[in-house]
Amino acid sequence: MSVPRSVAAHRQAVVELLTTAMAAKGTVHLPLLEALGRVLAVDLDAPVSLPPFANSQMDGFAVRSADIPDAGAELRVAAPVAAGSLPAELKAGFAAPIMTGAMIPEGADAVVPIEKATPDSFPAATARDAVVDLPAVAPGTYVRNRGSDIEEGVRALAAGTLLGPAQLGLLAALGLTDVAVRESIRVLLVTTGDEVVEPGHELTPGKIYDSNGTLLEASMRQAGLDVLRTGISDDDPASLLEVLHRYTRDAESPVDVIVTTGGVSKGAYEVVRQAMSGHPVDFLPVAMQPGGPQGLGTFNDVPFLGFPGNPVSCLVSFEMFLRPALSQVYGAPAPRPIHTARLDEPLTSPDGKHQVRRGSLGVDGILRMEGGAGSHLVHALARANALVQIPSGVTELAGGAEVEVWML
Amino acid sequence: MSVPRSVAAHRQAVVELLTTAMAAKGTVHLPLLEALGRVLAVDLDAPVSLPPFANSQMDGFAVRSADIPDAGAELRVAAPVAAGSLPAELKAGFAAPIMTGAMIPEGADAVVPIEKATPDSFPAATARDAVVDLPAVAPGTYVRNRGSDIEEGVRALAAGTLLGPAQLGLLAALGLTDVAVRESIRVLLVTTGDEVVEPGHELTPGKIYDSNGTLLEASMRQAGLDVLRTGISDDDPASLLEVLHRYTRDAESPVDVIVTTGGVSKGAYEVVRQAMSGHPVDFLPVAMQPGGPQGLGTFNDVPFLGFPGNPVSCLVSFEMFLRPALSQVYGAPAPRPIHTARLDEPLTSPDGKHQVRRGSLGVDGILRMEGGAGSHLVHALARANALVQIPSGVTELAGGAEVEVWML
Repeated sequence: MSVPRSVAAHRQAVVELLTTAMAAKGTVHLPLLEALGRVLAVDLDAPVSLPPFANSQMDGFAVRSADIPDAGAELRVAAPVAAGSLPAELKAGFAAPIMTGAMIPEGADAVVPIEKATPDSFPAATARDAVVDLPAVAPGTYVRNRGSDIEEGVRALAAGTLLGPAQLGLLAALGLTDVAVRESIRVLLVTTGDEVVEPGHELTPGKIYDSNGTLLEASMRQAGLDVLRTGISDDDPASLLEVLHRYTRDAESPVDVIVTTGGVSKGAYEVVRQAMSGHPVDFLPVAMQPGGPQGLGTFNDVPFLGFPGNPVSCLVSFEMFLRPALSQVYGAPAPRPIHTARLDEPLTSPDGKHQVRRGSLGVDGILRMEGGAGSHLVHALARANALVQIPSGVTELAGGAEVEVWML
Repeated sequence: MSVPRSVAAHRQAVVELLTTAMAAKGTVHLPLLEALGRVLAVDLDAPVSLPPFANSQMDGFAVRSADIPDAGAELRVAAPVAAGSLPAELKAGFAAPIMTGAMIPEGADAVVPIEKATPDSFPAATARDAVVDLPAVAPGTYVRNRGSDIEEGVRALAAGTLLGPAQLGLLAALGLTDVAVRESIRVLLVTTGDEVVEPGHELTPGKIYDSNGTLLEASMRQAGLDVLRTGISDDDPASLLEVLHRYTRDAESPVDVIVTTGGVSKGAYEVVRQAMSGHPVDFLPVAMQPGGPQGLGTFNDVPFLGFPGNPVSCLVSFEMFLRPALSQVYGAPAPRPIHTARLDEPLTSPDGKHQVRRGSLGVDGILRMEGGAGSHLVHALARANALVQIPSGVTELAGGAEVEVWML
C-alpha cells in the first residue's frame, strides 16, 4: 500500500497537470458584459486618461485662485458650465458656476463649493451683472486633474485579471466595448456507479439518486466552467471508455478536463480504475478525509481527475484540488476566501489525515459544525457555508479553538 | 436643507419600499441546474429518507456482530454485496464481502473493514468455502442507518433558501428534477447625463464614457437580477419620462425596480429630480460619502431608486442599499461577507458621515487602501476587493486600527 500523499502535494500535482492544458487555451473577444467572470487574456494599457480632462469635484464656482486674497473677494459671475459642455476661458475677476464633473475652464485653477459662496445659490440664468462673494482657495482645490485616476498609456489591467463588475466598469470608462479573454474551459463530467439512478426515476432497493452530477455541475458552473455532462455510466468499463473516447480522441473539439466520480477506491467493482488501466492515470491515497482515494493523470492527452463517489467527497475534491488549481493556473475562479473562526464545540480528527468538515460560520465568528465526518451527509452539507480545515497531525481541538475555514 | 438620513435608516427605507413589490412576485418551476442562485419558493419536505436504506460506510465484511466473540472468530464467506444490488439475508456464521454504499444484508448489523480481516483482501468470486478471520465489532459499526442524514417527511429546505450547489445536490439526492423558485426580479437601469457618451463612440471635449451602465449591470447580473438597460438618457426630463413610462405604465409586464444614475444632487441641471417632480420620489441627503444624494420612491407604482452619477457613488449605493435590501426581502443575493481587517495606514473621514472607502484585503488580514475618497476613481476601484466601512462619528483612524470590510 502506497504512502498517502499530502493534500498540498496532490494539489501541486493537479496544478502541474493543468498548466500545459491551460496554456494551450486561446483568446476570444467578447462584449464587456459577456466577459463577466472571465479572465483577461492580454495586458491592457489605458487608451485615454481618466479623467480625460480636469473637472470639478463639486457644484460651485470655478475661479482663478490668485483673484481671491485671504480676506475673500467679490467676483463677477460668468456663464455657467454644465457637465458635458466645453467652457469659454475664464477671464480674470470672474467666477463661473460649475457643476460636478464639468470641465474646468481654461484659466481657472480651483473650485469654491456653492455652500461657501455668498449668496449660496447660483444666480438665475437670466440674471445680468450678478456678483458673488467667495473665500480664498488654494490652487487645485476640488479639481480632479486629468489622468489623476489613470494616465493614458499606463497599464490599466494585467493579463490574467479576473473580470468582475469593477474591472468591466473601468474598461467602459476607458471607452472599450469588448475585451480579449481566455477561452473558457470545458469539463466532461461523468458520474459512475451501478447503484446510482437519475433523479426522477424509480428508486429500487439498493439504489440511490445521483446527487454528484448536480452538485458538481452546479459547482463548476458557478466557478465559470462549461460543463458537458453524460448520463450516469454504469459499472461496465467498456461503456465508460466509449464515453471518454467520444469526448476526447474521437471529438472534433476535445474537452479540456475530464472529471469522473466513483470507482476509484479498493473495492471489488471499481469501474474507473478498471477503465483507466493502460492509461497514464495514477490511483492513489491522499491523506485527506473525506476524499482520500483520488485518480489523476491523462486520458487521450486530456487531464483526468477521478474523484471518489460519495457526494461530500466529490465536493471536497473539487474545492480542495480542481478549483484552487484552476484559480492558480488559469486566473479564474476567484480563490475561496479563507478566514479564521472559533469552534463552538470540541472535535476530533483522524491521525495522519487532513480532515475537511462542514460548518456554518456566523457573523459572530463562531463556527457550528454541520453533520459529522460522514461523506454521505448531503443534508448537512446543504446547511453549511464553510469548509473547515483540520490539518494532518491535529487529532483533537477544544471548543473555542481557532480553525481555518474556506467560505463556500 | 434637510438633516441627512443615516445609512441604516435609508437602507430600512429601501427595505420597506421593496417589501410589497417582492411579495407580489410569483413562483416558477425550473430544472435543478437552472435554479442555481435562485430562491426556493416553498418549504420542501424530504420525499424519501437519506440514505434510503442502511448501507456500508466501508469496503469490508457485513456480519452479525453477535457471531464474533471478543477474541474474534473465523466466519464463512457469503456471496459479495455490490453497491446497487439487493443482497440475500446473511445467515448466522457467515460474513458477506460488502462494498461502500452497498445495502446491509438483512440479519447483518455491523461492518468489519477489509483492512482488519485476515486475509485482508476479498476472496476471488470463484472461490468456494472461503473463510475469513474477523475481530469483534460493536453493533452498528460502519453502518449508515436509513434516514441518518434526513428522514422522509422532515423539512429539507425552508422557503427563502438561496439555492447553491449543495442545496441543489440535496434536491437531486432526494430524487427531484425541478424546483419551485421565486420569479426573478427585473430592473430597469437608466444612466443619465449630457456629459456621458457610450463606449465605442467619439469622446469630444468635456465628455466622459459611461461606466455606470456596465458597472451596475454587471453588479446586478452577478447578484442574480435581470437587467433591462436603456441607452443613456440625456439631460432632457421629457425623454427620461418617456423611457420610464414605456417600461412601467405602458408595459405589458412592468419592471420590478427602476434604478437611475446621475441627476439627483443640487446642481442646476438635475434631470432625474426634474423628471420625478409630481411623482412620489424623495430626494434627500444620506450621511454617507460617496453616494450622499439619493432619490427614493415610486414611479407609476414601481419602486424607484435614484443613485448619484459618479461611478464609485453608484456602486456604493448599490452595495449599501439595494443589494442588502434584496438579500433581506427576497432571499437573494447572498449578503456580502463582513470581516474585520487592520489598516496598513492611518486615514481620516469627514465628520458626521459614514465613509465607504475601497481597499484590498490580503490573506494576512491587512487592508491596503485603493485610491483616495474621490468617487470618480474607477481604476482604483478595479484594484479593490473590499468596501471599507468607517462609521459616522469616526474622523481619524490610526494605522493598525481595526475596520469593518465588506468583501466584494
